[in-house]
Formats: sequence, structure tokens, C-alpha cells
Amino acid sequence: MAHIKLPEDLPGIRGPFAFRPETAKPMSELAEVLLHTPGSLSMADSELIATYVSSRNDCHYCQTSHGAIAAYHLGGDEQLVLDVKHDFESAGISEKLKALLNIAGRVQQGGKLVRAEDVGRARGHGATDLEIHDTVLIAAAFCMYNRYVDGLATWAPADTESYRRRAAAVAENGYMGALAAVAAQAAASKGE
Amino acid sequence: MAHIKLPEDLPGIRGPFAFRPETAKPMSELAEVLLHTPGSLSMADSELIATYVSSRNDCHYCQTSHGAIAAYHLGGDEQLVLDVKHDFESAGISEKLKALLNIAGRVQQGGKLVRAEDVGRARGHGATDLEIHDTVLIAAAFCMYNRYVDGLATWAPADTESYRRRAAAVAENGYMGALAAVAAQAAASKGE
Repeated sequence: MAHIKLPEDLPGIRGPFAFRPETAKPMSELAEVLLHTPGSLSMADSELIATYVSSRNDCHYCQTSHGAIAAYHLGGDEQLVLDVKHDFESAGISEKLKALLNIAGRVQQGGKLVRAEDVGRARGHGATDLEIHDTVLIAAAFCMYNRYVDGLATWAPADTESYRRRAAAVAENGYMGALAAVAAQAAASKGE
Repeated sequence: MAHIKLPEDLPGIRGPFAFRPETAKPMSELAEVLLHTPGSLSMADSELIATYVSSRNDCHYCQTSHGAIAAYHLGGDEQLVLDVKHDFESAGISEKLKALLNIAGRVQQGGKLVRAEDVGRARGHGATDLEIHDTVLIAAAFCMYNRYVDGLATWAPADTESYRRRAAAVAENGYMGALAAVAAQAAASKGE
């Protein structure tokens, strides 16, 4: 049971998003810019970074939902997502993404752990300042989302199929679309 | 030196905010709702929670800037801010705020560490669901802001007087006002 009274039919971050729409809006906008807007990292890469950090923070809901979205962007390659979570250095991904995941893993432990050589490695594989910035911020932001989801003791669906279904919707409609769906479901539950 | 090229005259989070306005906007809006909007925790209490979490994350810029804002809201009581950072259980603050700081400290370490008894203690001292929610989210959000500031190796002013000056401006104009000031300074530096 969650630590505060949340709508029972909304799992994970969707419960607190319905509870506090004022904070859900900027939190969704941040996810939209970092994970679902062209111009920086690919959606697959940014979702893989989000999944990896959520896995290191042991957040079941976030690593499963963003892992499913990453797999969707990868044409359904769920094994690659598992490989990245298990040992990204030996996964079938670009050297640039490996270097960015290394930075993300350091940020997850603490901002001060990022070393000039970590950034140099990423730059050596072609990472731009914008991509390095976004990697640091995605990792930092998921240290927020993960703590928000688990710190309120929200519940997470156990079946993988529901994550796949929602992943397709988020991949197609983005995070503001997902937020609108939360608001609609919360209103319907209230009988509005 | 910062890990990426940032405007040199903007310390702390202000450098990355000028670098990436698209993410600065939702991050500032989230701070505005959590730290500078009536209806939930007092501004002094929410800034003390932000300061305490930033102190535990060893983020010099964030703990000093939000500590100065907290002190401003407390009528200039900088000693109380230091007391909260050092040992909040013996500080001259309400029992409710102590219970909320205990929750914030757990969230800082990991979302799953918040126990039902921690929430029960806060509720026993009159904390509402909204206040408990906001405490968890302030703590989670500062695990993001702190990692963002330190993960990019931004610089922080060494003198306390500049933090006091900025604290007064943020306390009066809020976080969207602070963001507008960043944009104006960045534009001026570019000679626009």
C-alpha cells in the first residue's frame, strides 16, 4: 500500500501524477524534452540510459516501463535492453553509448564521481556537449523519478504485457500524451 | 572547469540552465511549485528540506544557495539553517518538520528506505498527505538538481555575501524570476 492515499487503479508514477497535477506537469515536460524530442540523443539511446539508471536504483516500475519503451524504439529487441542492464560494456551498442552509460552510472552514484576522463572517453567516440549534458541530466532526473515512485511506495504491475502496451502508447504520443491519459483516467475513476 | 562549455559568468545550476533552456524551464517550474507556491509546506520548511538533502549529497552550491533562501524566509536566522544541517533532531524546529526531514533523509539514500513508521511519525505530528508527498518529491528532486550541478562540474562562488544577495531575489521573485534573470544575463554576455 502506498504511503499516502493515491488512486488505486494507477500504478507507478501515474498515481502521484494524478494526486499532484501541479508537479506532474513540469516532471512530464522534462521527460518529454529529454526522452522524446529530436535534436540530441536518439529516443532509443535516451530510454536505454533511463532504464540503466532505474535498474541501478532498483526501481522496478521505472526500469520495466522505460525498458519496454527502449525496446519499442529498438524494433522490439528486449534482449538488448536486458544486455545493457546486465553489462553494457559487452552489449551490442555503439562505443559512444557505452561511454555515455558509464557517465550515467557515475551520476547515479553521485555527481562528483564523473571524471574528466569519463567525459573524454565519450567525446572521443563523437559525443557532443549537448549529448553529454543530456546524459548527465537523464541520469540525474531518474534519480528523482525513481525515488519519487519508490519513496511513496507505489505499486507496479507484475505482467510484462501491460508494460509493452503502455510503451507503444508513450513511444507514439510522448510524455505529455501519457500525462493527459493519466488525467483522463483519474477523472473517469472519480465518475466525472 | 566544467565538463562541457558553459557560460563562465553563471555559477552553479545557472550555467547549465543557460546552456539548455528547454530543460531549464520545467526544472524551474518544478522548483517554483515545490519551494515557492503557497498551499503546502511553508517556504521556510521546504527550503530547509532542500538544503538538508543538498547537504547530504555534498552539493556545495545547492546547500549554500538554498540555505541562504531558507535563512531569508526565517528572518535571517542562518544559525538555524546550520543546526538543521548538522543535527536536525536537536534543532529549534517543529516536531512535524523533524519527522519530514527524517523522511527526506531516507529518500536521499534511496526511495525504498522510507518506512511506514517514518510516515506515521510525520502524520502523528499533523503532516498531511500533501506535505508528505511534497517532502518526498523535494528530496527526490534535489537528488536530481545536486547531481546535475556536480555531474557537470559547475563552479560555485566562495563568498557568502553573493548567496545572500541572490537569496533575497529568489525569495522575492521566485524560481521563474530567477530563470528569467539567467536568460537575461546569458543574452547580455553574448552581447545581444
